[in-house]
Amino acid sequence: MIKFESDYLEGCHPRILERLMKTNLEQTPGYGEDEICAGARETVRKACGAPNADVHFLVGGTQTNATVISSILKPYQGVLCAQSGHINVHETGAIEHSAHKVLPLPSTDGKISAEQVESAIEEHYSDPSAEHTVQPGMVYISFPTELGTIYSKSELEALSGTCRKYGIPLFIDGARLGYGLASSVCDLELKDIAALADVFYIGGTKQGALFGEAVVICNDSLKKDFRYNIKQNGGMLAKGRLLGIQFDELLKDSLYFDLSRKADLQAERLKTAFREKGYKFLIDSPTNQIFPILPFDVQKKLAADFGFEQWGKVDGTSSAVRFCTSWATPDSSIDALIEALKDIN
Amino acid sequence: MIKFESDYLEGCHPRILERLMKTNLEQTPGYGEDEICAGARETVRKACGAPNADVHFLVGGTQTNATVISSILKPYQGVLCAQSGHINVHETGAIEHSAHKVLPLPSTDGKISAEQVESAIEEHYSDPSAEHTVQPGMVYISFPTELGTIYSKSELEALSGTCRKYGIPLFIDGARLGYGLASSVCDLELKDIAALADVFYIGGTKQGALFGEAVVICNDSLKKDFRYNIKQNGGMLAKGRLLGIQFDELLKDSLYFDLSRKADLQAERLKTAFREKGYKFLIDSPTNQIFPILPFDVQKKLAADFGFEQWGKVDGTSSAVRFCTSWATPDSSIDALIEALKDIN
Amino acid sequence: MIKFESDYLEGCHPRILERLMKTNLEQTPGYGEDEICAGARETVRKACGAPNADVHFLVGGTQTNATVISSILKPYQGVLCAQSGHINVHETGAIEHSAHKVLPLPSTDGKISAEQVESAIEEHYSDPSAEHTVQPGMVYISFPTELGTIYSKSELEALSGTCRKYGIPLFIDGARLGYGLASSVCDLELKDIAALADVFYIGGTKQGALFGEAVVICNDSLKKDFRYNIKQNGGMLAKGRLLGIQFDELLKDSLYFDLSRKADLQAERLKTAFREKGYKFLIDSPTNQIFPILPFDVQKKLAADFGFEQWGKVDGTSSAVRFCTSWATPDSSIDALIEALKDIN
Amino acid sequence: MIKFESDYLEGCHPRILERLMKTNLEQTPGYGEDEICAGARETVRKACGAPNADVHFLVGGTQTNATVISSILKPYQGVLCAQSGHINVHETGAIEHSAHKVLPLPSTDGKISAEQVESAIEEHYSDPSAEHTVQPGMVYISFPTELGTIYSKSELEALSGTCRKYGIPLFIDGARLGYGLASSVCDLELKDIAALADVFYIGGTKQGALFGEAVVICNDSLKKDFRYNIKQNGGMLAKGRLLGIQFDELLKDSLYFDLSRKADLQAERLKTAFREKGYKFLIDSPTNQIFPILPFDVQKKLAADFGFEQWGKVDGTSSAVRFCTSWATPDSSIDALIEALKDIN
Repeated sequence: MIKFESDYLEGCHPRILERLMKTNLEQTPGYGEDEICAGARETVRKACGAPNADVHFLVGGTQTNATVISSILKPYQGVLCAQSGHINVHETGAIEHSAHKVLPLPSTDGKISAEQVESAIEEHYSDPSAEHTVQPGMVYISFPTELGTIYSKSELEALSGTCRKYGIPLFIDGARLGYGLASSVCDLELKDIAALADVFYIGGTKQGALFGEAVVICNDSLKKDFRYNIKQNGGMLAKGRLLGIQFDELLKDSLYFDLSRKADLQAERLKTAFREKGYKFLIDSPTNQIFPILPFDVQKKLAADFGFEQWGKVDGTSSAVRFCTSWATPDSSIDALIEALKDIN
Repeated sequence: MIKFESDYLEGCHPRILERLMKTNLEQTPGYGEDEICAGARETVRKACGAPNADVHFLVGGTQTNATVISSILKPYQGVLCAQSGHINVHETGAIEHSAHKVLPLPSTDGKISAEQVESAIEEHYSDPSAEHTVQPGMVYISFPTELGTIYSKSELEALSGTCRKYGIPLFIDGARLGYGLASSVCDLELKDIAALADVFYIGGTKQGALFGEAVVICNDSLKKDFRYNIKQNGGMLAKGRLLGIQFDELLKDSLYFDLSRKADLQAERLKTAFREKGYKFLIDSPTNQIFPILPFDVQKKLAADFGFEQWGKVDGTSSAVRFCTSWATPDSSIDALIEALKDIN
Repeated sequence: MIKFESDYLEGCHPRILERLMKTNLEQTPGYGEDEICAGARETVRKACGAPNADVHFLVGGTQTNATVISSILKPYQGVLCAQSGHINVHETGAIEHSAHKVLPLPSTDGKISAEQVESAIEEHYSDPSAEHTVQPGMVYISFPTELGTIYSKSELEALSGTCRKYGIPLFIDGARLGYGLASSVCDLELKDIAALADVFYIGGTKQGALFGEAVVICNDSLKKDFRYNIKQNGGMLAKGRLLGIQFDELLKDSLYFDLSRKADLQAERLKTAFREKGYKFLIDSPTNQIFPILPFDVQKKLAADFGFEQWGKVDGTSSAVRFCTSWATPDSSIDALIEALKDIN
Repeated sequence: MIKFESDYLEGCHPRILERLMKTNLEQTPGYGEDEICAGARETVRKACGAPNADVHFLVGGTQTNATVISSILKPYQGVLCAQSGHINVHETGAIEHSAHKVLPLPSTDGKISAEQVESAIEEHYSDPSAEHTVQPGMVYISFPTELGTIYSKSELEALSGTCRKYGIPLFIDGARLGYGLASSVCDLELKDIAALADVFYIGGTKQGALFGEAVVICNDSLKKDFRYNIKQNGGMLAKGRLLGIQFDELLKDSLYFDLSRKADLQAERLKTAFREKGYKFLIDSPTNQIFPILPFDVQKKLAADFGFEQWGKVDGTSSAVRFCTSWATPDSSIDALIEALKDIN
């Protein structure tokens, strides 16, 4: 059985394991205050072209989203995001658990526009009973989105511009940041992300690490006392160096992007294979997640040897499914799936 | 420099690293729903003699405390604990962040008694304005305590009995559970913990794992939907098998207890050495943490080669300090410290 | 200027003022534990035909909604309601402030159906990653709705049946309950509300009281310790008898319903007048709120002498506006508005 | 039976009732945006000598404390207060319900000192693991305290100075502010309170109003968007003018202070009477609450005709009890109690 259900099925890149072993019995202070983490923070700053950014390592995405968002919002403020945003649908209400409303905007491709954000803010402040409603206090987007789509540079510049115009921070969830930046159609670099976001994170869990997300705070006004928030939200790993090791290994050279590019290319091969068989897609996603619409009988045949995820109903005879490649997907897995597709009538 | 500041200075037991490597490229479902976790849960249940317990793996202690406590309490309830309890003093208000008051009871040795708990409950319900105060909804203790002390079997039975009498759950924070159970003066076994607590956890982070705490829910009424709580609190590790591997390795044989016993014995050697030099202790702790009271000039000499932590003021010429041993402390480190002590006048 | 902007523009029914004066210097215990409140609770129980219900008096609607909802839900649960529900749009996120997600269902008339609730619940539990999403834990409806519409008996029976089938409580926000029950098209009585809801409240603020909402808890499992929740949420009025007086006066005979019926009839007269002038309505609401769609020039003429509220854009030349009648609206105000309408071309 | 259990046993000063009646059928906008409230805010500002202060009217004390405190603190901050502070012991954890820890300081007379606050802050910031603990973010005191004691001008100046030195706001709970300021030993005026506090409130509920607390925000940095917080916390009264009327009547001339002074003098008469009988006091309180220590047999005799509250155990034969006078206490009630005391042997 070859599994394509998600991009967190395997362990981590071997370089990480090697360094874990090499450093295993070293004694270091806890909570990220060790030399390895210091080095890794510098590595991240360099990769981002953001020498003054604050860098923090957290364990997982839901925790990171809740920590960042609750550190920014005032009690009566909420966070604007796409209806399909991870914080709105797949975190068991972690944002509301930290007492803030998610303010969803309609979206069919996982993205929201500068115009939508501007309208939402203008609508709020022009409402004579504004104070009876939740004030938009920040914007959350994911890059790539939960549907594998990405923002263009001009789209992201517009969003960032709108946020700055109104003085509300832009937060980018980069759980799959590498797969987005490495996409053949992406015109953004990591430095652009750092320049346009007020705070964002570089995903590790889905990108070759065992776990971990590297939060990069670019906006000075969001930096103060952030570690208190991490600790309070249960995100301060005692053996913090484990996170330092992982991000240092992934980002000290081109590894992070090489792994991402490989996964994107493999997804592209799959996409082509499905397209050549005549299948349509729920959405045209240029990263490591693809969403072909497959007849149930085809799904049944594929399911004998391949794992994939149901994504959404389409009609009585077919549904959209998700195939994910990852940093760990071998070519042989892609070959096998393409081969199997060929045999299906 | 040999460091004794804490018991989370090193990585993990080699068996864990080996299994991480061996399984690294296996594909498993996420979020603890894999076979390795299933096996590890069974391993934990067996070790606890609790075949019907629910077992969940979380990443860290603060997160675990907040998740367990907020899953149990009603909005107007608080958690009774020792004044020195970790949740009261060292988690940046994580319990309050999940909207519950910590109800501290006075304690000099880190422990609270059944009588104190009974009094607090009786006092609450006999107050004519009880509903204007926070209702005690559960009891939190740590075993061993933050001061390295442990409860005797009869003390724990009394606490458990009081909790059951009043129908409020007893939660045991076992971040250092092994060091407690392995102590030469401990008359409790893991099975007793499982029989007397409503919910507790077996610490991994400080006990030979890279990270991780295994929550064991013994009381049926606390089991429902616990995974929702884990996810909401950001404690559901995507690559959950990493936790399964660690607890399976530690608990499938006597490793967890062997490592603990070794650390306790090394702490005992240190204690003897300090005692023989005539130093007193802040408290008589029979586990892996010891708290000698040392003159500042002695501290200064030791600090050249050894790391330890300031614990509390005593007088103008000395203070209490903490030395921790751990599963990873080599005999040579103890030898070196004892030798250094001998040379001090 | 005659104001129709809302139904809380005036003070209270004179009977309430009289009793306030008569009892002013009496000494009574605080927090609702006085004889007047005891009598008023009995009055409410009788009016509801619910001899075993628990009755509590709170000060305002937002407070009541937050208190009731947070007393019921587990941390990972949310409350299903109409997109237009007051808790979703007009309480500055009070529900999220108490850490719960509002789960909005689409609605054009302010109502939701049993089918919608059933679908939402079924969809949740059939999702393999249900525990990554917020669990529906209760249903909130308003009667009448924010758009002045009401549920029929069969609709409410269906909703109640679905809630009971799935074991989740039905909570009815009755801020304008009287105006709903007194409507000429309503086939429900207060006793039906009490029989079909698990908890509901009888609005005072908009129904002839100075302030106050009477919460009626019908479901035994929701009764325990509710007063702790009231106190914690700041809703326990020190001089509780002020609330007792108001609800006793309104409900000890037919006053509450007489006042409501009068207001509904006056709204009906207005509706007829607008209809006869050829204006359409945003929605056909049979209670004390009506929503005619008026050309801007007509609005401008009316606005010289009458207050009303903008409700929503319709097109470039007209918008929907809201006129509210209340228990205090004199016939002369209606006459004047009808007269003014006649003069408009 | 003459009741001295509290200062919220009666309704309100007749002037308030008269104005309620006179304005009853006037139509005014809701939520405090009416002319009466505008006038009352100006009345409050004048009384405080604080022309630039923001003034808001809320319904009750617990609600006010939770709203003010949660509007100020960051998530990881707590509020310093006396162990006996109302927010720490008598609000069912309302502060924790809004996710903040109360940081109690030891106190025997209900007061805390500038030195205590300074120590707590210094201790926090000098702790190498400060970020693992709750950061002191503001100071809460009550004036007078829950024990009827008051701060002197120099004590309050010192507290205020310390708060300003460290940049953390000082919040004064003035639920009984008048009884404090009117005390014969008080060297503070309302203008001093406004000059020394960052935010405080003038109590209405216990001081001659039916209900209500007037929040005065003196520090500009705390003013923004405060009404959102009020609404979110359920404290925005729909018929806001009811609050405006009450504070305007109480403060537009010397009524508030005249009523307070009378109550203080009556308490003083009682105190003298108890003292002359040889009874001691739990504490020497110069305001409207007194705490004599009475033998149980004396209590029993008095209890036949007078209501008072148990306050605390003293020994096997006596306890401390509380007698409260209020704005409404007639001289005849004091005379009767003094007479009764005389008859007791």
